[in-house]
Amino acid sequence: MSLPKVLDKIDAGLDASIERLMNFMRIPSISTDPAYDADVERAADWLVENLKSIGVTAEKRTTPGHPMIVGKIGEELDDKTPHVLFYGHYDVQPVDPLDQWKSAPFDPQIVDSAHGKVIRGRGSADDKGQLMTFVEACRAWKAVTGTLPCRITFFFEGEEESGSPSLVPFLRENKDELQADIALVCDTTMVSRGVPSVSTQLRGMLKDEFTLIGPSIDLHSGLYGGPALNPLREISRIIASFHDPETGKVTIDGFYDGVKEVPADQLRQWNDSGFDEDVFLGDVGYSQRHGEEGYSTLEQLWARPTLEINGLWGGYNGAGSKTVIPSEAHCKLTCRLVGDQDPAALRKALRAHVEARLGPDLKIRWENDLSGSGASVMNLERTEYEAARGALSDEWGREAVFSGMGGSIPVVGFFKSELDLDSMLVGFANDDDAMHSPNEKYDLESFHKGTRSWARILDALATH
Amino acid sequence: MSLPKVLDKIDAGLDASIERLMNFMRIPSISTDPAYDADVERAADWLVENLKSIGVTAEKRTTPGHPMIVGKIGEELDDKTPHVLFYGHYDVQPVDPLDQWKSAPFDPQIVDSAHGKVIRGRGSADDKGQLMTFVEACRAWKAVTGTLPCRITFFFEGEEESGSPSLVPFLRENKDELQADIALVCDTTMVSRGVPSVSTQLRGMLKDEFTLIGPSIDLHSGLYGGPALNPLREISRIIASFHDPETGKVTIDGFYDGVKEVPADQLRQWNDSGFDEDVFLGDVGYSQRHGEEGYSTLEQLWARPTLEINGLWGGYNGAGSKTVIPSEAHCKLTCRLVGDQDPAALRKALRAHVEARLGPDLKIRWENDLSGSGASVMNLERTEYEAARGALSDEWGREAVFSGMGGSIPVVGFFKSELDLDSMLVGFANDDDAMHSPNEKYDLESFHKGTRSWARILDALATH
Repeated sequence: MSLPKVLDKIDAGLDASIERLMNFMRIPSISTDPAYDADVERAADWLVENLKSIGVTAEKRTTPGHPMIVGKIGEELDDKTPHVLFYGHYDVQPVDPLDQWKSAPFDPQIVDSAHGKVIRGRGSADDKGQLMTFVEACRAWKAVTGTLPCRITFFFEGEEESGSPSLVPFLRENKDELQADIALVCDTTMVSRGVPSVSTQLRGMLKDEFTLIGPSIDLHSGLYGGPALNPLREISRIIASFHDPETGKVTIDGFYDGVKEVPADQLRQWNDSGFDEDVFLGDVGYSQRHGEEGYSTLEQLWARPTLEINGLWGGYNGAGSKTVIPSEAHCKLTCRLVGDQDPAALRKALRAHVEARLGPDLKIRWENDLSGSGASVMNLERTEYEAARGALSDEWGREAVFSGMGGSIPVVGFFKSELDLDSMLVGFANDDDAMHSPNEKYDLESFHKGTRSWARILDALATH
Repeated sequence: MSLPKVLDKIDAGLDASIERLMNFMRIPSISTDPAYDADVERAADWLVENLKSIGVTAEKRTTPGHPMIVGKIGEELDDKTPHVLFYGHYDVQPVDPLDQWKSAPFDPQIVDSAHGKVIRGRGSADDKGQLMTFVEACRAWKAVTGTLPCRITFFFEGEEESGSPSLVPFLRENKDELQADIALVCDTTMVSRGVPSVSTQLRGMLKDEFTLIGPSIDLHSGLYGGPALNPLREISRIIASFHDPETGKVTIDGFYDGVKEVPADQLRQWNDSGFDEDVFLGDVGYSQRHGEEGYSTLEQLWARPTLEINGLWGGYNGAGSKTVIPSEAHCKLTCRLVGDQDPAALRKALRAHVEARLGPDLKIRWENDLSGSGASVMNLERTEYEAARGALSDEWGREAVFSGMGGSIPVVGFFKSELDLDSMLVGFANDDDAMHSPNEKYDLESFHKGTRSWARILDALATH
């Protein structure tokens, strides 16, 4: 019956926990941009030292990309003690547009908000703050009881924001070392503020990128304008063809193959989850939903696939003007996948859709080696789910809900395919945390109650 | 009968003339980017000193923008001596994409090409090299005869590549000082290599720029993808609506008001001008013309209006990928105008076309103070035209042609409207000079024969 003491320990040590998180956040571990490689390495070293300070036998493991971290604690406990693998990522998103930040992205600040104090800075919510809720819960358990209620394997990667190129090979090479009863992942949001949530389905993701090439050199729009083929005009025409303007549906042949409608009872759960569509949309400047006709906002977010343009550029974007017809136009896009949509088949269909629309003299270059992963649906027959739901309900004083998740956490699919390991996703982020955006933040409530929640879940998993 | 001696002097001094041009080109006078303001100033000072070395009373005149240069020579000549105003611009275009240059843009190089030696570097053709053909012709006349065959006012601006914001106010404030019989402009191309040309019609230009705003902040495409409005998708839809994909015509209401068909006899002249469509298009990677259905390449270039996207950007364009739905999408565009198309009316129609296509929650911000100028058609009844045509034919050993011009030289319209001054456009650039593009160059033949051509034209204007 150590749990109350552990929770008191967490409360008493909150300021120190926050200080550790802020030190972690000060390291600009942007994994997608090689300019930050040394910082990503530094973040890995920081995390290894932090785990060791709890008594975890943690190591940094090199990969062809950014390092993995593997750590173990509670190995002295007997085999009947549950063994969980906790996953998180220590890398973060790029920070542009920099001029929209209210404070430097890697100089974390504690500021007041409409919902109490928050920690502002890149990585606060995605995923350093969430990752640390679990680490700090373990720290408190160790401090109070000298051990942990479960055997724990820590597994952290530094490539989650850049497609995890090293993940699958690493899982294959270290299959035995990473065995556990279940994987715990803390990289998700609560369905709405104050409503604890276990995410039971995640969308998959397909990334692609192409360049259209028109003239062999940039041209003067006066000397060539008229007979010249302008790739900016062509790329706009092609992008405009991806969606049906009436229904909002993606027009690529076979795009919806493998997409299933949401069962009525699950829809009812979602509708009763306290999610407020108007607040969710209004917070980011929308007066209405803009997705597929005939689906609720939660369905559009959790159960419907999308095709989004994430980057579009070509020609002159500097000060003043330049009368140029550029040689190239570029597009980065991602599809969010659901149900049984097959990333490989969709990539083929997407590329066929684009190439069928190339006119004479218009060439295309595709970016290769871009990742794709299918959607994940959790195995709700695992008893750990109800145990965690109970622990979360106790902490938050409100029944926890089984929700969906619009984002993609490919590792969940790979844990299943490579390690035959089921995952449970519990996260404490809020929709207004501006993950991937300027002024990313994490509520102190999320950090504090999140840490307490993990302390309770570890206890529940050991005793259920 | 000094002309033969003057031509000999030009031949003998060619190397020194080239060296002066290269010194001029070494100054990165990019007028559209404030980062280069000091260099633009330096280019103006260099040019003033260069004019003074011929005996021109040259001055730099400050404006709210970049300085103007006004110089006079031959003022001692009597009033019956023709008085010409020579115009050119000493500013240049930006140099991006820098990685496509074979040598540094502001480190001019003399290199071999399929058509003999060329001077490679930004400004070689547009307009420093062309401007210097006239200056060097004057230098030779002065050296041989101690004077000039015509009274000459030099007028150079440093804002031609950035919309000439100070031009009209300056013309108004200095109306009397800038009076002359005719304006000579050297900023145009030859209709084809080795075919001397007098440009008798120019397209006008309308510039505009807008930003579409969707969500109030950048969004995570997993957490919001579906119900979110993506401004990159919206801007593509709007840009795609500018043209009829079948006919290539611009779809904006009233866009073609004031556009006239080319008279048959003029079309015949153009068709006999030696212009090779296949070479013109093939040089830049095209197998066919891509403009308005039913018009020849020269008509599309010289006599038909266009709408071109010059810049398009939004979202993430760095290394790797970023799963973002950006708050903003940006577009820079220009229209080339012909006949009596009215820039002000077209700007209204363009903006109405775009705004009629904004959906709910999609906001727009227009860039203001962007320039517009109508097309120019020369007054061919001026006897100077035939005099110049004769001089050019003598120099190039081939009948000079009256051609059109796809580019825009707004100053020609302003000389007429503000100073009631007709212009004559004679230029020696070639279509493959890559003006506004990487590896801009100017043929030594253009520079040498161009200088000799101006020497002959000044003589012809004085004696015709």
